[in-house]
Amino acid sequence: MALTTAFTELFGVEHPIALAPMGGSAGGALTAAVSRGGGLGLLGSGFGDEEWLARELPVLADEGAGKPWGIGFLTWAIDVDVVARALEHEPSAVMLSFGDPGPFVERIHAAGTKLILQVTDLEEARRAVGLGADVIVAQGTEAGGHGARHGRSTLPFVPVVVDLAAPVPVLAAGGIADGRGLAAALALGAAGALLGTRFQATAEALVAPATAKAIVEGRGEDTERSRVLDIARGSRWPAQYTARTLGHPFLDAWRGREDDLAADPHARPAYQDAVARGEIPALPEWAGEAVDLIDDLPSAADLVGTLAAQAETALARAGRR
Amino acid sequence: MALTTAFTELFGVEHPIALAPMGGSAGGALTAAVSRGGGLGLLGSGFGDEEWLARELPVLADEGAGKPWGIGFLTWAIDVDVVARALEHEPSAVMLSFGDPGPFVERIHAAGTKLILQVTDLEEARRAVGLGADVIVAQGTEAGGHGARHGRSTLPFVPVVVDLAAPVPVLAAGGIADGRGLAAALALGAAGALLGTRFQATAEALVAPATAKAIVEGRGEDTERSRVLDIARGSRWPAQYTARTLGHPFLDAWRGREDDLAADPHARPAYQDAVARGEIPALPEWAGEAVDLIDDLPSAADLVGTLAAQAETALARAGRR
Ligand SMILES: Cc1cc2nc3c(=O)[nH]c(=O)nc-3n(C[C@H](O)[C@H](O)[C@H](O)COP(=O)(O)O)c2cc1C
Ligand SMILES: Cc1cc2nc3c(=O)[nH]c(=O)nc-3n(C[C@H](O)[C@H](O)[C@H](O)COP(=O)(O)O)c2cc1C
Repeated sequence: MALTTAFTELFGVEHPIALAPMGGSAGGALTAAVSRGGGLGLLGSGFGDEEWLARELPVLADEGAGKPWGIGFLTWAIDVDVVARALEHEPSAVMLSFGDPGPFVERIHAAGTKLILQVTDLEEARRAVGLGADVIVAQGTEAGGHGARHGRSTLPFVPVVVDLAAPVPVLAAGGIADGRGLAAALALGAAGALLGTRFQATAEALVAPATAKAIVEGRGEDTERSRVLDIARGSRWPAQYTARTLGHPFLDAWRGREDDLAADPHARPAYQDAVARGEIPALPEWAGEAVDLIDDLPSAADLVGTLAAQAETALARAGRR
Repeated sequence: MALTTAFTELFGVEHPIALAPMGGSAGGALTAAVSRGGGLGLLGSGFGDEEWLARELPVLADEGAGKPWGIGFLTWAIDVDVVARALEHEPSAVMLSFGDPGPFVERIHAAGTKLILQVTDLEEARRAVGLGADVIVAQGTEAGGHGARHGRSTLPFVPVVVDLAAPVPVLAAGGIADGRGLAAALALGAAGALLGTRFQATAEALVAPATAKAIVEGRGEDTERSRVLDIARGSRWPAQYTARTLGHPFLDAWRGREDDLAADPHARPAYQDAVARGEIPALPEWAGEAVDLIDDLPSAADLVGTLAAQAETALARAGRR
């Protein structure tokens, strides 16, 4: 018996699973694979880079088998033109995270496209409901990649957002990497789960082999949230967001001294040099606490079905010894 | 259909719910109420204060209706004599948290008493398995009260501990305050949940009315983990533990400046004076992120059954729209 929720019904997808629109790594192939597998693939367009989209959108069209898909942006980094261009490709959904989605809502709804808003606290959740979000993603602090500096943990956060948003469907995000996590999300009242880190370690993710390996080998306790790497690499991410990554020499060197790092004229060049010399990876290894649960590199299309089947088993077994 | 797990079978209790042995507030009446309600009550003996136990154990004996119960200690704060004295009262379980349980294990098992160990990371979990724990409590950082400074979040932590500990039953702790949270714990593979903050706001908890009110009114985002209040009140808690509490003027004044606080000769007297003047509560308001979900002050005996029934409903509805 399949898992049916307000989310699967809204998009006409088979499984209550969404791909996190991971900037850069959730390209056309990964998005298409998740959608073919029966989930909702969300292209990780991040800043809305036109060149990247010109490369990835055709891959998605080729490989997506006509299934529903969506596209995600970093709200603080884009303008309405970026969204307008995306809407021309007729995605089923646009997902906006981190920043004020207000200026984009009308445009998206006018195109008949569903609006997915990712939130990290109750105020954002309330605002998302007020704006008419079709789906709300409640992100916990165990998530890989960026999120709120003062984040909530997924397990206690999701049911509060579910109550607040009802009847708007909520997806749980952060710390979910196997079917048990998906089952837990559904038990909390969510209509599904949005997974990032788990999909980084798949055949279709646009990541360096070393990144996939680091996720497979990494442990949750090696991950931490910080601004250090954003400052060191000169990223434009606003100061209220930290990112969860695997360990990194710059984290050890600068942890707790973010202001000194920002003021140090030698730090950024040193970071660039270390990248050039191959001593540190070109990008931080964004990963969530659930890396412990990841030990293979499957095809994302297969993974979606596996996760759903595991979740059904987990629910059937829960409290039924 | 009741929820049956390795935990309910081990103790012969009706519901997969344990009371966190909250130092001071989980007295005889609360422990008895949880056990009468069909869960496992755990007396919050903390440091093992003899006077407190001499008062609370008779209450427990009177009101416990002969149901299984246990007793919890702070491992770093006790010696073997404390445990030996507790064992004379023939508890079904001794729970040890925070510190090295090694010196106590033999004594507890020799008495035929079950050993419950609370862990906050994978190393502690591995050690607990090695020591022959009968039940492992996996505590996430969203928990109320004390825990590891570098904690894990409950949702991604529990399944990892479940895999590592199998077949030893695992209870999830941290962020669980309603039946959906219990259902999620079971879906993650746990054999039940251990709840603290939720039981603080019950008729039987040994808390000031203002504390119960603060929990009912508090929001998860008002809670934070810190050492500030332990330092300010001159507590013996070791430096590797922070505690999650509701907001507090001393947190606002000293957040991030723990070393300065410890070195300031005026800070502790100022704290005592503020307590004496009634400006701040005598004890920190320990509470977890799940306070959002708490809005009543039921009897703990009734609450146990309600939580179990809610969990069954949540599991039955999960993914079954
Ligand atoms: C490598 C990586 C990149 C991410 N990039 C984005 C992004 O560009 N936009 C976004 O909304 N979320 C991004 N996220 C966060 C996800 O939306 C999601 O909240 C998170 O992955 C969920 O937690 P999990 O990683 O434990 O599954 C990213 C996450 C990762 C791991
Ligand atoms: C007021 C309070 C006091 C606590 N005291 C203790 C204690 O003395 N010993 C202990 O093992 N855990 C103690 N804890 C932690 C609990 O064992 C448990 O991990 C926690 O309450 C679970 O999270 P929750 O509060 O979100 O339910 C305490 C928790 C609270 C809220």
